[in-house]
Amino acid sequence: MSERVSGEEALIQGYLAPLAQGAPGAFGLRDDCAVVTVPSGCDLVVKTDPVVAGVHFLGDDPPEDIAWKALAVNVSDLVAKGASPMAYLLALALPEAPTDDFMRRLASGLGEAQAAFGCCLVGGDTDRTPGPLTLSVTAMGSVPSGRMVRRGAAQPGDRLLVLGSLGDAALGLRLRREPSLAAVWGLDPTDVAALVGRYLRPRPDVRLAALILKQARAAMDLSDGLVKDLGRMCATSGVGARIDAAVVPLTAALRRAVKAAPELLELVLTGGDDYVPMVAVPPAHVAGLLADLPPDAIAADIGEITAGSTIEIMGPDRRPMRFARSGWDHF
Amino acid sequence: MSERVSGEEALIQGYLAPLAQGAPGAFGLRDDCAVVTVPSGCDLVVKTDPVVAGVHFLGDDPPEDIAWKALAVNVSDLVAKGASPMAYLLALALPEAPTDDFMRRLASGLGEAQAAFGCCLVGGDTDRTPGPLTLSVTAMGSVPSGRMVRRGAAQPGDRLLVLGSLGDAALGLRLRREPSLAAVWGLDPTDVAALVGRYLRPRPDVRLAALILKQARAAMDLSDGLVKDLGRMCATSGVGARIDAAVVPLTAALRRAVKAAPELLELVLTGGDDYVPMVAVPPAHVAGLLADLPPDAIAADIGEITAGSTIEIMGPDRRPMRFARSGWDHF
Repeated sequence: MSERVSGEEALIQGYLAPLAQGAPGAFGLRDDCAVVTVPSGCDLVVKTDPVVAGVHFLGDDPPEDIAWKALAVNVSDLVAKGASPMAYLLALALPEAPTDDFMRRLASGLGEAQAAFGCCLVGGDTDRTPGPLTLSVTAMGSVPSGRMVRRGAAQPGDRLLVLGSLGDAALGLRLRREPSLAAVWGLDPTDVAALVGRYLRPRPDVRLAALILKQARAAMDLSDGLVKDLGRMCATSGVGARIDAAVVPLTAALRRAVKAAPELLELVLTGGDDYVPMVAVPPAHVAGLLADLPPDAIAADIGEITAGSTIEIMGPDRRPMRFARSGWDHF
Repeated sequence: MSERVSGEEALIQGYLAPLAQGAPGAFGLRDDCAVVTVPSGCDLVVKTDPVVAGVHFLGDDPPEDIAWKALAVNVSDLVAKGASPMAYLLALALPEAPTDDFMRRLASGLGEAQAAFGCCLVGGDTDRTPGPLTLSVTAMGSVPSGRMVRRGAAQPGDRLLVLGSLGDAALGLRLRREPSLAAVWGLDPTDVAALVGRYLRPRPDVRLAALILKQARAAMDLSDGLVKDLGRMCATSGVGARIDAAVVPLTAALRRAVKAAPELLELVLTGGDDYVPMVAVPPAHVAGLLADLPPDAIAADIGEITAGSTIEIMGPDRRPMRFARSGWDHF
């Protein structure tokens, strides 16, 4: 067991301040507030989505992955709005004085994540808590003024696309809890590692922000499952949708699992933790979006926005699917 | 017992969305992110400081006061930096599905606080947590570009002022835990109510932001006790200080209590929860600051910034005070 860190100052200056070096407005984490300068002609886009042990991650997930996820889930929301990440705050609530090893690993995961997403720690807070480990990130990004891509702007006739594969994290979490499922689902250790990896480290692709800003009429981050989040986009936009579950993009490992256990398709569509943008795009913009897509990115046209309020999800058997549970709700 | 609120959507739309009505960038809390427009020529100043049941408030504190405090402690930091509050995010972590009564009272406290501080809810998150009730506010304000008043800019010769009375909340918390202390300290029920009120509802004065911006060289919010926070300002500024405990402003109730129990002075100086700005002001600016002070506001010149790194706190007996515990530290 490595030594415990003693004192808030040692914790902040020893482990977190190096993450703030690139941001002059962080003042080396030696002030009470941070300054963020929004580029002229831009709006600030903000999001806060805490991750809590036992709710959003497992208590024994590696600290570097917990840290990565805490930032990634917030950056993912910015990207889906067409915003470029700039800075973030971290409020860290620790159930006990952390060890040196824990803090090093946490900071290393944050460092990797902020390098991948192009943003910088600028401030935050550390507390002891009688509750579970909680990382509350507030992420800030910029979009040209008045241009944030809304959830509620979809129009009948728009094509509906997802910009990434779905279901990996939901299956990854199941596998992390019940490793024996790998055999049932016909997955080899490489598949399992890939799926668990998607659960541990969601990888929002910040390159998509510019694309979404340019081509999408409406957009949102898929985090509570496609079915539930599509319902939200439709309700807010006052529209319906018709999508085809058979064309939802799945990784090779996931296709194998769904082939072995077809009932897993429901988990793919409702399990959540995808952190992939869903966009409603005017038909005339689809070709442009696909043309601008980075070569290693995934996009699939899964259906269309319709008039009315009905959401129809066509199953692989060409019949509408019904769901026992549409997605994640805390209450 | 009032009915429990079912569903995240009902919780957000039923209780929180009305608090976001004044902010177009909140989109009625029906989007994934919020937009904040920083006035041209201004920087954004940001702060996040969660409050946790059992750490920052008592589990049986009234929900409207908990909500008020969650916003007030963050606004207080903005004010001390010379920033004008604009908007805030709230991440609400609830140990169980809340009752209608709880949510109404929580929203009412937030509503009163945001009206008092001139800012608006723009977004956030609601979660269930296996831990205690937690309200994580991220507060955002604006200052003219490059003008945020720093903690680390104090210079030898500056006068040190506190812009409010100290110690009320620390005694209020003690009284809330041990009501029998009122008799020991010679306090009547009106005194007790006032002190407990200061603990339950810190009242940062947003009018002071403009004053601090205009006159202070360095400033910080006093939240962990004068002794500890003065130590922080001095360490960050690379200076020392000499202050006179006898001139620290105390309310009439507190003066009575300290007279009855002189050892309480240590609690006044180290107890924390003051949420009062401490400012280092060039001597030539002191008169201007006092002249601009609202008539109902309190300010006291408690000492001076010195060269070196020694902090000397003169007691009422004209001898340097020593402290068993300088202030609040979580680790």
